[in-house]
Amino acid sequence: MQNVVVQDIARAAPEVIAKLGAAGVASVHEAQGRTGLMASRMRPIQQDKAIAGSAVTISAPPGDNWMIHVAIEQLREGDVLVLAPTAPCDMGYFGDLLATSAMARGCRALVIDAGVRDTKDLRQMDFLVWSSAVSAQGTVKETLGSVNVPIICAGAAVHPGDVIVADDDGVCIVPRESAGSVLAAAEKRLAGEEEKRQRLAAGELGLDIYDMRGRLAEKGLRYV
Amino acid sequence: MQNVVVQDIARAAPEVIAKLGAAGVASVHEAQGRTGLMASRMRPIQQDKAIAGSAVTISAPPGDNWMIHVAIEQLREGDVLVLAPTAPCDMGYFGDLLATSAMARGCRALVIDAGVRDTKDLRQMDFLVWSSAVSAQGTVKETLGSVNVPIICAGAAVHPGDVIVADDDGVCIVPRESAGSVLAAAEKRLAGEEEKRQRLAAGELGLDIYDMRGRLAEKGLRYV
Amino acid sequence: MQNVVVQDIARAAPEVIAKLGAAGVASVHEAQGRTGLMASRMRPIQQDKAIAGSAVTISAPPGDNWMIHVAIEQLREGDVLVLAPTAPCDMGYFGDLLATSAMARGCRALVIDAGVRDTKDLRQMDFLVWSSAVSAQGTVKETLGSVNVPIICAGAAVHPGDVIVADDDGVCIVPRESAGSVLAAAEKRLAGEEEKRQRLAAGELGLDIYDMRGRLAEKGLRYV
Amino acid sequence: MQNVVVQDIARAAPEVIAKLGAAGVASVHEAQGRTGLMASRMRPIQQDKAIAGSAVTISAPPGDNWMIHVAIEQLREGDVLVLAPTAPCDMGYFGDLLATSAMARGCRALVIDAGVRDTKDLRQMDFLVWSSAVSAQGTVKETLGSVNVPIICAGAAVHPGDVIVADDDGVCIVPRESAGSVLAAAEKRLAGEEEKRQRLAAGELGLDIYDMRGRLAEKGLRYV
Amino acid sequence: MQNVVVQDIARAAPEVIAKLGAAGVASVHEAQGRTGLMASRMRPIQQDKAIAGSAVTISAPPGDNWMIHVAIEQLREGDVLVLAPTAPCDMGYFGDLLATSAMARGCRALVIDAGVRDTKDLRQMDFLVWSSAVSAQGTVKETLGSVNVPIICAGAAVHPGDVIVADDDGVCIVPRESAGSVLAAAEKRLAGEEEKRQRLAAGELGLDIYDMRGRLAEKGLRYV
Amino acid sequence: MQNVVVQDIARAAPEVIAKLGAAGVASVHEAQGRTGLMASRMRPIQQDKAIAGSAVTISAPPGDNWMIHVAIEQLREGDVLVLAPTAPCDMGYFGDLLATSAMARGCRALVIDAGVRDTKDLRQMDFLVWSSAVSAQGTVKETLGSVNVPIICAGAAVHPGDVIVADDDGVCIVPRESAGSVLAAAEKRLAGEEEKRQRLAAGELGLDIYDMRGRLAEKGLRYV
Repeated sequence: MQNVVVQDIARAAPEVIAKLGAAGVASVHEAQGRTGLMASRMRPIQQDKAIAGSAVTISAPPGDNWMIHVAIEQLREGDVLVLAPTAPCDMGYFGDLLATSAMARGCRALVIDAGVRDTKDLRQMDFLVWSSAVSAQGTVKETLGSVNVPIICAGAAVHPGDVIVADDDGVCIVPRESAGSVLAAAEKRLAGEEEKRQRLAAGELGLDIYDMRGRLAEKGLRYV
Repeated sequence: MQNVVVQDIARAAPEVIAKLGAAGVASVHEAQGRTGLMASRMRPIQQDKAIAGSAVTISAPPGDNWMIHVAIEQLREGDVLVLAPTAPCDMGYFGDLLATSAMARGCRALVIDAGVRDTKDLRQMDFLVWSSAVSAQGTVKETLGSVNVPIICAGAAVHPGDVIVADDDGVCIVPRESAGSVLAAAEKRLAGEEEKRQRLAAGELGLDIYDMRGRLAEKGLRYV
Repeated sequence: MQNVVVQDIARAAPEVIAKLGAAGVASVHEAQGRTGLMASRMRPIQQDKAIAGSAVTISAPPGDNWMIHVAIEQLREGDVLVLAPTAPCDMGYFGDLLATSAMARGCRALVIDAGVRDTKDLRQMDFLVWSSAVSAQGTVKETLGSVNVPIICAGAAVHPGDVIVADDDGVCIVPRESAGSVLAAAEKRLAGEEEKRQRLAAGELGLDIYDMRGRLAEKGLRYV
Repeated sequence: MQNVVVQDIARAAPEVIAKLGAAGVASVHEAQGRTGLMASRMRPIQQDKAIAGSAVTISAPPGDNWMIHVAIEQLREGDVLVLAPTAPCDMGYFGDLLATSAMARGCRALVIDAGVRDTKDLRQMDFLVWSSAVSAQGTVKETLGSVNVPIICAGAAVHPGDVIVADDDGVCIVPRESAGSVLAAAEKRLAGEEEKRQRLAAGELGLDIYDMRGRLAEKGLRYV
Repeated sequence: MQNVVVQDIARAAPEVIAKLGAAGVASVHEAQGRTGLMASRMRPIQQDKAIAGSAVTISAPPGDNWMIHVAIEQLREGDVLVLAPTAPCDMGYFGDLLATSAMARGCRALVIDAGVRDTKDLRQMDFLVWSSAVSAQGTVKETLGSVNVPIICAGAAVHPGDVIVADDDGVCIVPRESAGSVLAAAEKRLAGEEEKRQRLAAGELGLDIYDMRGRLAEKGLRYV
Repeated sequence: MQNVVVQDIARAAPEVIAKLGAAGVASVHEAQGRTGLMASRMRPIQQDKAIAGSAVTISAPPGDNWMIHVAIEQLREGDVLVLAPTAPCDMGYFGDLLATSAMARGCRALVIDAGVRDTKDLRQMDFLVWSSAVSAQGTVKETLGSVNVPIICAGAAVHPGDVIVADDDGVCIVPRESAGSVLAAAEKRLAGEEEKRQRLAAGELGLDIYDMRGRLAEKGLRYV
């Protein structure tokens, strides 16, 4: 399935997406069995910002950003662009003009295993980016790719319409079909954490809260 | 031409340099046919700052910063130090004392394909740095290099007196002789971008503004 | 000496530790003969913050953070956790719950040659981190390691109770036994620097202050 | 679907697999539209050897090779083990004992985005390996993973039973369902190449054989 | 000077080129003042082979090998193709068909700061390659570059017609104009080395042959 | 302890060293509790060769090989040179002349976390090298280091006189004091492996030999 644009993709419910974003990457990643995390080379160009949205996926050749123009037409309110080049590339596929266009269609973030440019402008526009590089190096518009097909981005499988959760810790993908159950698991986890946070803040030890001493001794840990 | 200091170098006109800095790295890089960009490992130690200046170049051995002292004497108001080690090195060649000295001679920035230290102080002094590393590791003063000779820094050729343009997107070199024509091309480009920005912000698509649909179809893009 | 927890470690005097922190990484590193610096991949998750403290060391398997729980019990006011995995690993060993627990015991910083998560929370808690990665990827609690044994972290040898000095330039280790003498050397160095800073700011050249011209000529430097 | 072993997987026809191996990675990759290639960090520990086989997939935690033992029981004649760690890891998951066991069950190759050891022995046994590292560092057997589930290995999606083609150029995955059609395309491509090879060897130019001169001129190429 | 093919380039004398090749990379690099060496990521795909030839240079976009076809027409007996992509790229630009064509025109080697494929075939053909990657990933033919213009390849400046010297230690560029004088210096150096080799083999120490003991003591070396 | 040469170091017994070499890196590393292994960037320049010897250690500045000359005088029959630069460096510290000199004193191998050159010659001389780079880039002789002091090389602590074991899998350090006990453990391990190798070759499964099925089930592994 190459050189295609899939126009009609399903998305998760907006309130589920919003709550997954509030839960954050670490909690969501844990809640779905530690799957779906992109490689740690995916870093934000801004700090202390988080987002969740529906993936509009792009498979593009290295150094060619033509398909981003095609993908922007497919964007709806709340979507996140996710681009995987077909070979490693650090060039600047995306800058403030494309961000202006994407924002005009309700998209507020880009996840790209390649480079971006105009990063100061993007921060000022509050357009969020997670990328593996920053580079002013421009791209061409010569070779087709695909939009809204399954891709592998920074080691994670992304299907169009999957929920992208991104914050300072990285980027995690929640399959659309399991968004609801993952949210439930994440919220349960967060609730449990709050109670533990208070006990830990009060000086209780994880060794005791999680009852680890016996198993440590059994494994052979010696205190000297 | 080794172990030399070229004392009398030509520089571009200050107003041209200033305007190139205002145009920014991405625009300047495009305006000169996508040449002159340093590798993306060159990152700023500060955020949301930009500069342009005339290159005073330094070729130095790995782990030896002696020639920076020599180069500082050659600095004039508005210059930028550009250092390329003769082999990959992440040591801290430059800190707040050298920055103090460089600033006393009118230099406000360093571009170095190696490490710097005292980065907090440098930010507080508003001395700008683009480097490939941050490291406290000190260097020696034992082996000569050269000042104001042509160098290759992070993959880009730099001649003394070339215009260095640097911002959050990286570092670009404009050959001194073409500074005026590159500026003209950059400003023309920026003017064209402004009109496009407004159309994109209003919701027009790049597909239409740039008239891409026909060529995409011709290449075989299929909408499904 | 594997799978042990050394409970009773010596620490340097608090006032010496505090002054080493004030001197900063670059000065301390110089003062002890340019030894003890961790590799430049160790970067802070916060900016413009510095710390010094006594090392509580952790040797842990890749992807296993069990020993952090064990180490936290050994923390005293002013300690810094220092973790070296036994093989390269970028997973997120540490997050806000462990930081809460560590802070409850008087520890305010972590140095880890691996990943951390919950970085926004850690910044908000003012818990300082120097790490070689940021990653939401969780770890297991299955395999023992050791606490308060000598480790090699990011290329530097660390003994329990050594003084950790960390700031924007990286992380440096001062052996506990030499903390006093290193401090004396660092303060002497800083005093000397202040006088030089003023002369450099006034426009004097390092070439003259350090009397370099003769030796440069002798080595063959030519001005053209 | 975690911590499972899928016991009954479909495989492609042996003669199709053998012919895909004979066609080689570059031809097969081209024949299936340039998809399925693992990242270039996957390098052979031997030279001038090629193989094709059916993937028995392993998802394993970093530094834990327990699931390889589980996977070996699932091997049949002609299979290739494919292991992806759940986080980057360069440890030595696999050595001569595991190779002995795998060979006893008809498996002659391993593809692993991590490290191997006993490499001299493996070469002597003619057990072929493509890996991203060589390391003597041993692993533990503490945490479950899965066998014969879909994995992403070195950036490529692998389903159990897919055809693995590997040679000096790297590793390519052919989905089981399309093995026959990819083979047909690869053989057609190879036939076409042979005719071109002879013309090129006789001194004809690609510029003429592929009729490129017109399009180059049209794009603006200038001969000076 | 973009999108041009320079057809008429000067080359060094064949016997000078041959002798530079015999002298080898390390000697030539020393003989020209330690300049002209490419970065150490440039590795041979074969072992224990050396070559020297005249550079036919190619500047090509990432992932686009069109200009190699153009460059092959410019090859003469004894030339070496040298390709620098305009951004980092590990794709396989070159394989056995292009090698067949290049060999038909008298070229026996490629130096490329990117990937190659068909490496087993290339070794069998005795077509020599120094590259920064091996990858089966194919490229497109869509965007122009230039042939026989000055390029920067793996950190070294290369002008068309410069002498390329390559062996197991890497790749070094000798400017065409200085080929004769560099050869003279290299041969003088080699002659001097031979005498030293014999003395060292007989057990004399470099400390004595090079008269280092006094200067070491002066610098403060202590024997304990 | 800087700028010193320790002349009188203890070494392990030659027959113990030889047997550790025969046991190989993986076995020795396991036998001493998985400690002492250098990072996987340390690769041999030759294939299928192994060695063991007593470490003569060198701490040297980046790009300065002066101390190798000093170290060679300290070599005795069966020693291995081990060099750690004080900052990352890929330059060629060592070539055929130094190897000639080292061999004249009974040394047959070098372990260096930096570059070497003349690699073809070194292979022909059967002088073995494990390094993190190959580079023709020459070094200077300007700055002192130390010989036979404790160093950290590629992440492993090395004391002078420790036993270096190196083969295709990497480099492992055995502390001199524990050489005998590590050898005993390694030989015991190898004996046990031989019996397992035969059972595995006969088709028995590790799952059964190591009695893993119960624990796998207990942990929750499901066969589907």
